Order: sequence, then C-alpha cells, then structure tokens
Amino acid sequence: MYDKIPYKIYLEENEIPSAWYNLRADMPVKPAPLLDPATGKPLTFEQMQPIFCDELIRQELDNDTPYIDIPGEVQDFYKMYRPSPLTHAVFLEKALDTPAHIFYKFEGNNTSGSHKLNSAIAQAYYAKKQGLKGVTTETGAGQWGTALSMSCSFMGLDCKVFMVKVSYEQKPFRREVMRTYGASITPSPSETTEVGRRILAEHPGTTGSLGCAISEAVETAVGTEGYRYVLGSVLNQVLLHQSIIGMEAKTACEKYDIHPDIIIGCAGGGSNLGGLISPFMGEKLRGEADYEIIAVEPASCPSFTRGKFAYDFCDTGKVTPLAKMYTLGCDFIPSANHAGGLRFHGMSPVLSQLYHDGYMKAVAVEQTGVFEAAELFARTEGILPAPESSHAIRGAIDEALKCKETGEEKTIILGLTGTGYFDLAAYAQFNDRTMSDYIPTDEELEKGFAGLPKV
Amino acid sequence: MYDKIPYKIYLEENEIPSAWYNLRADMPVKPAPLLDPATGKPLTFEQMQPIFCDELIRQELDNDTPYIDIPGEVQDFYKMYRPSPLTHAVFLEKALDTPAHIFYKFEGNNTSGSHKLNSAIAQAYYAKKQGLKGVTTETGAGQWGTALSMSCSFMGLDCKVFMVKVSYEQKPFRREVMRTYGASITPSPSETTEVGRRILAEHPGTTGSLGCAISEAVETAVGTEGYRYVLGSVLNQVLLHQSIIGMEAKTACEKYDIHPDIIIGCAGGGSNLGGLISPFMGEKLRGEADYEIIAVEPASCPSFTRGKFAYDFCDTGKVTPLAKMYTLGCDFIPSANHAGGLRFHGMSPVLSQLYHDGYMKAVAVEQTGVFEAAELFARTEGILPAPESSHAIRGAIDEALKCKETGEEKTIILGLTGTGYFDLAAYAQFNDRTMSDYIPTDEELEKGFAGLPKV
Repeated sequence: MYDKIPYKIYLEENEIPSAWYNLRADMPVKPAPLLDPATGKPLTFEQMQPIFCDELIRQELDNDTPYIDIPGEVQDFYKMYRPSPLTHAVFLEKALDTPAHIFYKFEGNNTSGSHKLNSAIAQAYYAKKQGLKGVTTETGAGQWGTALSMSCSFMGLDCKVFMVKVSYEQKPFRREVMRTYGASITPSPSETTEVGRRILAEHPGTTGSLGCAISEAVETAVGTEGYRYVLGSVLNQVLLHQSIIGMEAKTACEKYDIHPDIIIGCAGGGSNLGGLISPFMGEKLRGEADYEIIAVEPASCPSFTRGKFAYDFCDTGKVTPLAKMYTLGCDFIPSANHAGGLRFHGMSPVLSQLYHDGYMKAVAVEQTGVFEAAELFARTEGILPAPESSHAIRGAIDEALKCKETGEEKTIILGLTGTGYFDLAAYAQFNDRTMSDYIPTDEELEKGFAGLPKV
Repeated sequence: MYDKIPYKIYLEENEIPSAWYNLRADMPVKPAPLLDPATGKPLTFEQMQPIFCDELIRQELDNDTPYIDIPGEVQDFYKMYRPSPLTHAVFLEKALDTPAHIFYKFEGNNTSGSHKLNSAIAQAYYAKKQGLKGVTTETGAGQWGTALSMSCSFMGLDCKVFMVKVSYEQKPFRREVMRTYGASITPSPSETTEVGRRILAEHPGTTGSLGCAISEAVETAVGTEGYRYVLGSVLNQVLLHQSIIGMEAKTACEKYDIHPDIIIGCAGGGSNLGGLISPFMGEKLRGEADYEIIAVEPASCPSFTRGKFAYDFCDTGKVTPLAKMYTLGCDFIPSANHAGGLRFHGMSPVLSQLYHDGYMKAVAVEQTGVFEAAELFARTEGILPAPESSHAIRGAIDEALKCKETGEEKTIILGLTGTGYFDLAAYAQFNDRTMSDYIPTDEELEKGFAGLPKV
C-alpha cells in the first residue's frame, strides 16, 4: 500500500508551516478559562501579566483565531532542526507481522532530545521581544529545561531553571547540557524562594517534585524585575506552538497519499499529543474527516482514565491559577518506581475538554510493557526512544497487534517525542529485570481527589 | 553566495550511493600491506581468515576496484538513518562574522550517535552472510560498540564487546544502550582471556586501554568457533564503508552548486576523515580538482604531527598484525586528562600514506580550545557536538577566522561525526573550568618510539 514512498519523509524547507494552527478555534465547547484561586473568577490579561509574557497571554486567551503567524526568527530557528521526519516503521511492522501500517513522527533529532523545543523557542522569542531580561521555569527529567536553555541562549536571554532535586542529583548530564547553554540551574526545593523554604521546613530531606519546582519558578519570576515564568506543557499556548508537529505530519500525509486511521500519542501534560493531533482533530471537529485518536498514559499516573474533570492547581505549592482538566489532584504523587516522565497530575485543558466531549479516547499502560515496546522499537527501527515516547509505541503496537487478529490494514501514526539517551538508568532497571509495575489503588486516588479545591 | 540553498540539505532516498568508493584505486602509492609480526611478510588472505570475515579481507586487500556495490540489506539499513544532512552553518558564520562559508556533514542523528554505524552494519552483514554466529570487538568511549550492537541486533548476530574498564565504570549509560541491543559487555582487561590475565597480573588495578581491549577481542574471536573480530577504524575496509559520508556530501555539493575549498575532519584512527574526504581526495589524486584537506588531531595524542611513519602494532598487547602508519608507538598512552576520543596511538594506513605523500595536512589542537569551539557550536547551531567532532569544529573555526583576516570567501566543509550526549562529564569539566591541556614532551614521545617493532 505504501511501497512507493520513501522510508523517511522529509518535507522541503519551504513546506514547513509558517503559521501555527489554533485548535480551539474549531472546538464546539471551548476549554474552560484559568481561574484566580482567590476569587474563583476567570483570570484577566492584567492579572496574568506579572507571571506570563504579554503576547503569550494573548495566545493563551485566544480561542478564536484559527491560524497565528510564526515569527520569522522562530521560523529560522525551526529550520535548524525541522522539518522532522515522518518515518515508515517497516522494520517494526515486519517484526510484528501485522497488516497495519505504522508511521512515526520523530521529534528527537535535536539536542534537547524532544519536541519541547518547538514551544521553548517561541516563548523565548516573545520574552525577548517584550524586552525582558530573562525567564524562569521548572524541569523534571530535563527535556523542557534543556529546550528552554537552548532557546534562551539563541535569543540572548537569561534562563533560570528550577530542577527537581532528585533529577538534579541523578541526572547530572542534563544539567551540564543546560549549563553549556548558559542557564543557571537550582535544585528544587531551594532556600532561594519562600515556597521552597516552606516545603523544606515541612518536609526536610525531600527530593522535590515538579509541582514544587513550578511554585518556585513562578515565585521567582513574579519577584524579579524583568523576568516572567514560562511553562512547557499543559497551557493552551504550548499546544498552539506544538501544532507544528501535526501540521508537518499532515502535509507529509497529503503529499504522499497516506491516510491515517489512528493517531496515537503519549500524554503527560499533553504538549506532544495536542500538537500532533491538532490539524487532524480540527478536521474531525469540522466534520471533514474521521480519525481514531488515542492518548496513552502511564497506569501509575492515570489522569485521563481514572482522574476527575475538575478545576485544580497546576502545582503542588498551590501558587498557580486553577485549570479545568482531568486531574488526580495536585497532592497526588506518582510512585517513586515510575521510571519515565508523564508524571504530571493534570492534563491540558484543551485535551481534557475534547476527551470529555468524546472526541478522543485514552488507554493506560504499565511500565514494563512500555519498556518491552521500547526495546523492540530500538532493535527494529534503530532509535532508542524516550520512556515517555515509548508509551505511544506501546499503544501503537497494541493497535497493530489487534489488526493482526482482525486482518485490518489500518494506518497508524504515532508521535515519537524524543530519545532516551538521558534515561538509561531506567533502561538499566529494565535490562536488569528489576523494573516493576505500579497501579495506584482507589484509596490512593481518593486521597488526591480529596485535596481538589472547591470552586 | 549560498543564499538560495536550504539550511539543511537532505538528499532524496534514491540519491544515497549504491556503491562505496575505494580511494585506494586512485592512489599513486598504495598503502603498505599489513605484515605478520612473526615473519615480517605481508599477511595473506589465509592468514587473516581466523581473525576477519572473508569478504572483509577481500575488501581489505583490494587496492584496485574503484567502486564496490553496497549489499541491498545494508542499503535498507542505511535508509533508517541516511542520508545524513549537509547543513549550512549560517548561525556559526554570523557569530564568527566571517566571509567564509561553513557547511557540516552531520553523522550524529542515529542512536549510536556517530558515523560508526556506516561500517558496523556492513561488517555485521558480511559476518552474517558467511554464516558466523557472532563477532567480537573492543570499544572505548562506546560509540563503536553501540554501533556494532545495533548492527548485530539487526542482523541477528551475537555481539561480544570488550569495553575499556574505565569507560565501563564511568560510562554506564553507553553500556546500557549496548545491552538494550542484546550485546554482552565485558570490562577490559578481564579474566576471560590470556592476554587480559597477563595484563592484570603485570598491572594490578589497571583501568584498561583501547589497545588492551583490542587484544582481548582478537584472542576471543580466534579462540571461539563461529566468531570473527571486527574493528571500527584504521582498517582499509572501514574507510571504504565510510566513503558513503563523502559521497553523499559530494552529491549534495554538486546538486546545490557548492564549491568547497577546504575539507576538515577530526582524526583518531581516521575512519571519519577517510570517509569524508574520499571522493574529494579521489578527484585531487586524479588531477580533476584541488582541495585543501586538513586532519585535526588532539595535541595530547599527535600521531600525524609528531608521530613516525613506521610499521607498528595496532594494539597494546601486540597480538595484531603490523600496519604501516603514523604512530606514536603502541606503548604510548595519552594523558588521563585527555577528555575526548581520538586517543589511538596510530592512524589509518591509507591516510598515513596520503599525508606522507603530501596530499593533505594536519594540525594539532588543545582540548580547552576544542571545548570552546564546541560550546560556540552548540549555542549557535543547536547541536551539542562530540568532543571528537569538536576538533574538526575547532579547525574549521580557525580557518574561518583566517578568512576574516584576509577577507577570503572560502567554502569549508567539516565532518561533524557525532553528538556529545554521552560525554557530559567532559563538558562538566569544561563548564567548571577544571579542564586543562596537555602536550606530551619530546622525551615522552621518544619512549613510545623506542617500543616500535623492528621490521
């Protein structure tokens, strides 16, 4: 069926989209607005200004404009590592002996190792354009922090990264990449912020969490002249920037007559999934085409499949606005045995609304199965995938195996968000057969839900 | 001058060469043959058979056939990660404010992280075709071992890697990549070989060396039914396979009207440099074109610039054949403060002969200057380069800065062999400003030369 197309499809440079697609414009029910936790009322532009860059707030609030031009400098930067290839996974198909056709959109061919760079450079650009001195952010595994460091270095901005302490200590290599790009890295919780000092006092010896690092980054941005806070997932603006993934994928499909039936992505905060599916979901919302869209999340942090659709804080320290999303509660902490990323308790409000309205489905997978899929993918397709991405691979393999049962010749596109070069401690666990699975009990989830704010 | 061409040039899949170019066919003086150290006579096909795969011996000995077809299965594998991009370093040029034009051929977009895969898959293919069970090899930093593990996994061959003990311990992540591809990894020196036991008895507590690991891998191959030894550099066959780098680069130059004046590569054993320059050097040897060809080597291991052109062992244990090459003597051990690769005492016999005959030049650079170049490259071009590759970057920057002095608008092509994701301990040294330089004294070099075999 796809015998005549190249193994790897690279678009021409002039086929890289020059505008992002804003999926919200086509949503029949728009995502709920961010709320001020103090008043329970929607946050205004002015209220967000101390935290976020002006232009990014406009993008965050814009539910109507379908296409937003990508600034020239951002387009130039994109050309450094884009277009990313859409690859026909012929060797994986052969190993699975499936009639299904599997394609993957690979976002890992850049030094940040993931798709995060697509939004980082946009956010750094708007911060620079506003005349800011720098930005603050948090990072867990380090992909977002690396992407932002690269982007700030390129734009000549200062970059302050709060890195979850356990990652800071266990992943010194990511830290060094960020330092090479001139960023300053603070292990979180730290003594440099009020929220950090409070958390350290309450939980001496804590190794930190993403939620806590967010709190520190926000406090620092608000309290430092010429700084704003930037975030690599969850927010509407991030999904907007990440739409470039899906737009390139769709252009490649049209150019080479590829007709996807299923589109699969991993889901932590939703940045990659939201970007990958954007233009396809747009067609679906407009009734122009139909696709099966599947979010794959870890069974140990199952926001979609076992969470509640409710307003919640985006961080542990409860300093952020409230977002309406599928959430396990901001007090929920994934098991320490959880190796990969995708540890966030919540989910993009855009994706949450679409899931709630029945436009996409979600599955939860366990981590040993995820690493089995990763190993098979590495051995057949020659790319060592990130644990996050491997959730999508697991989902795609499961769909391809169903096709083997039914004989259906479905076409599957999966989002391969990045590489696993900095996740080899997890691979070592898998290689040593010391990796285990974990599924939270209903009681554990109830504890998380109990902390949901009353709105 | 090059305003109209894409930032990154990807050839079409059908433009990937279907034959390797054998530079030896055009050499006026052929590289000297490998010698049997016992007799001092050239090794015959039959003498090499216990060590190497048959077809690879034929390629090793073939100084006449200009083009050798790439087997279909190897071409299929190449399509997984090739063609590699030829990228116009516009952001680096801008940062240097130079009239020079810099292009880099980037071989790092694959999980082995370097060009090594180009020869690994060919060698694994021929081993499989011969009906062998597996292959043995050595690895230092781990790039070659990773490439071979991937290739053996793809071909269904067993892969036994002897990894220099200090790397085995300090680079557990590379080890885990190899394990993910199913290879077995033994820290060298080990108790599993006679030469390993001898070295351990003579030097208790040694952290190993590449030369010692070679000795163990050769002994294991010769002593195990159905196994042969494979090597990722130095040999003629390796340069043959690596010619794909240069052939793709040349095709891209012709397609986009790029006229290189200078071609620059880093030189350890010579695999990348030899591959990159092959077709350009061929034109030069045939008198069809002229290029300035520059090998960049570390000042701490200066085979070309301070070595002797003489017959020497390829390993420390003195179990390999003798090769005529520029060498520091197989007893020479680079300073422990040397961070990057390129630690090999010798050099490809092909490149050695060409250098001896005046067709190329060489420069030696110090490591802090190399990492300064790496940092600038990472920040401007968005790729964190391997320390090895950064030698070529240093060389290219120095040439571009000369152009800035003279106003010459030269076109430079540099070989960017790979990424530095597994070299962040060295980057950390650089970031911490604890990195130092080292240049061996004449007396130290004399000690190495004193151990050269009498032929």
